[in-house]
Amino acid sequence: MRGINVGLIGFGTVGTGVVKILKEKQTLLRNKTGTNIILRKICDKDIKSKRAISVDESLLTTDPDQIIRDPQIDIVIELIGGIHPAKEYIIEALKNGKHIITANKALLAEEGKELFLIAKQHKLSIYFEASVGAGIPIIKSIREGLVANRFLSILGILNGTSNFILTKMSKENLSFKEALQEAKRKGFAEKDPTLDIQGIDSAHKLILLIYLCFGRLINLEDIFVEGISNISNIDLIYAKEMGWDIKLLAIAKKEAQELEVRVHPTLIPQDHLLSSVKGIFNAIYLSSDLINELLFYGPGAGQMPAASAVVSDLVDLVQNIKAGLFKPQLEVIQDSSIQRLKNISEIESRYYIRFMAIDKPGVLAKISGLLGKYQISIASVNQKERKKQKVVPVVMLTHEAKEKNFKEALSRISKLDVIKEKPVAIRIEEL
Amino acid sequence: MRGINVGLIGFGTVGTGVVKILKEKQTLLRNKTGTNIILRKICDKDIKSKRAISVDESLLTTDPDQIIRDPQIDIVIELIGGIHPAKEYIIEALKNGKHIITANKALLAEEGKELFLIAKQHKLSIYFEASVGAGIPIIKSIREGLVANRFLSILGILNGTSNFILTKMSKENLSFKEALQEAKRKGFAEKDPTLDIQGIDSAHKLILLIYLCFGRLINLEDIFVEGISNISNIDLIYAKEMGWDIKLLAIAKKEAQELEVRVHPTLIPQDHLLSSVKGIFNAIYLSSDLINELLFYGPGAGQMPAASAVVSDLVDLVQNIKAGLFKPQLEVIQDSSIQRLKNISEIESRYYIRFMAIDKPGVLAKISGLLGKYQISIASVNQKERKKQKVVPVVMLTHEAKEKNFKEALSRISKLDVIKEKPVAIRIEEL
Repeated sequence: MRGINVGLIGFGTVGTGVVKILKEKQTLLRNKTGTNIILRKICDKDIKSKRAISVDESLLTTDPDQIIRDPQIDIVIELIGGIHPAKEYIIEALKNGKHIITANKALLAEEGKELFLIAKQHKLSIYFEASVGAGIPIIKSIREGLVANRFLSILGILNGTSNFILTKMSKENLSFKEALQEAKRKGFAEKDPTLDIQGIDSAHKLILLIYLCFGRLINLEDIFVEGISNISNIDLIYAKEMGWDIKLLAIAKKEAQELEVRVHPTLIPQDHLLSSVKGIFNAIYLSSDLINELLFYGPGAGQMPAASAVVSDLVDLVQNIKAGLFKPQLEVIQDSSIQRLKNISEIESRYYIRFMAIDKPGVLAKISGLLGKYQISIASVNQKERKKQKVVPVVMLTHEAKEKNFKEALSRISKLDVIKEKPVAIRIEEL
Repeated sequence: MRGINVGLIGFGTVGTGVVKILKEKQTLLRNKTGTNIILRKICDKDIKSKRAISVDESLLTTDPDQIIRDPQIDIVIELIGGIHPAKEYIIEALKNGKHIITANKALLAEEGKELFLIAKQHKLSIYFEASVGAGIPIIKSIREGLVANRFLSILGILNGTSNFILTKMSKENLSFKEALQEAKRKGFAEKDPTLDIQGIDSAHKLILLIYLCFGRLINLEDIFVEGISNISNIDLIYAKEMGWDIKLLAIAKKEAQELEVRVHPTLIPQDHLLSSVKGIFNAIYLSSDLINELLFYGPGAGQMPAASAVVSDLVDLVQNIKAGLFKPQLEVIQDSSIQRLKNISEIESRYYIRFMAIDKPGVLAKISGLLGKYQISIASVNQKERKKQKVVPVVMLTHEAKEKNFKEALSRISKLDVIKEKPVAIRIEEL
């Protein structure tokens, strides 16, 4: 029985989980693959701290070259995260003939073009199941299980931290800040949660899903991204009263020859499956030419779920390497019917709007008059309190409107003297 | 570029879908695999009727031997369904060195032991993604994507017909018969819907999921199976009032060294994801040692979803064959910690019970007295109407009780002279 040698760079939370599985489930994995998977080296800046699993000291190194340049190593697992030096390590490993497994969504979303090209030139594979939805086998499902499908849309709740915060705010009527504190306390938010709450992490993951579904690796700058930090709990309450939930949704939709891509807080109907995705859970909702609805749901983060995904990539690679003649991954094919990305200003959407307006006669007429001027029709309007001559919330749902028109109308309305705060506008997906 | 030759037996609904994909997506599949997939022969009893896709007449035959015994053919797709002659065709094809793709859950669940063994002896694979959850890539996900997981439980809504009927009954307050008629009208139920509504189809699928998750192919006779034909719409209404939904659930749970396996109508909480699975949709909800919750959701039947799954199996096989040295599937490994199947009489469950009892003093005392004798404690009780000396429904929810005790108590209660119909009892899963 030939063994396959593996090197791990990054002995943090997920890395420790991977080592744990490889040690504790050695027999299971050998029985499933007919191959010995040998963990040959583990590299980390810190090899002194105690981990939840004990490893032979001779396995540990602080020098990545001992993995990248070891001719015995077939597969390198990169779990240090961030762009640098992860990128350099991976390029060097590829040039030394090693297949790559990574959970690094930021790196692949921002530098994937270069990395995938180098891998291809060297007839090597880059696997990244853990980078989206942790343990949910979404990447394998899209790439292999749904291989014959032409995708029409992706809707994802892809960031566990944001979803935890929104769920907390909604359930316990907390402010954004309070819910963020709670997320930090529970270890669900990092010290600097910017990437998560500003929607960047969701955008990174969406870029990878779009790459697999539509065959294009688009640039982060080309995506409209809006985070959740401006969401207020009263909007969650008003939305709920009207039968909606607010989720940070990552959206990609093919319409004719255009692809619409965006990440933003979104009102979705409470009776939709995505609305049942609470707390740190993630879900990916797909539609294709062959299957109208598919949903994949699971924890969006966590040591063992992510490690489960890394090990499934590892087993795939082991199976392919041991087939003798290396079996490459299925090619990602560009959907040639897509000609361009739609700009956010061109999209059409329904909107939830909350104005803080002075409660006096004629205010609604002014607002709706301006909306009407921009061809925006109102589906419902609801003044939430009565306080004559005082500032009260007025909540409107619009019908479909062009983003460009909507933005202009909103800008003009916010200048009215009866409007006392910047209006809050949240897009609606009817699903 | 070497081509891989495929023979199809069964040119019905799903078969036609497969031919459609192979014709219309030839280029996509060639680009993804780097291989030509050549449909060499199609066999059906009826090769005269027009299909939604036109094929060259020379491809058609009524003689399965032209596929099974053609030395050029690498892969046989069996889509005729039923045990015989599908079983004989598959055995003969395996003996002739052909890999198998099938959607035939009944065949694999009942005769899988023999078929998998013959395949193994000949170093061939049997793929069956379309047999559970149609287009949902659940089999690949369990076998490969979750390869490192030790499973703890499977909860599935696995039969679209039953779920459609229960959804209709609940939403539109129809009787079972009316909802079944509607399902037939819409083409969601077969002329003889016995396998679907009696839970047998769900049990077949559960057997296959258990095979993949726990490595044992258990016998249909060893599973407790109860269908939905005794469910009445008033039970759906009463359940809903108390925050529950009723679903036909396929359940497998590992507890210590035992596996609990059953299929029956089940009360589940309305706020659980499985409760949002409506109409013909299916869902599989998994729990493992590495991932506490995973859900896979999609249409449970349909021409193109099922064809999507068949083609994904085909692409897997094509990839493996073309790797030169044939790469076998990952082994299914028996979970050796499971010593035995739990008998239904040994399980513990909460229950919903509806008695039709005469409305007079002392009735509740009699019922609850008998329940108490068997160590069954009542969580809530609700007399739904008041009609002195007339028959009224009395609804109870129990705490956890032993099935054996519960059955005996119910049998004694039903003999009371104040009880006027056979009591309805439905198990509860709290999830």
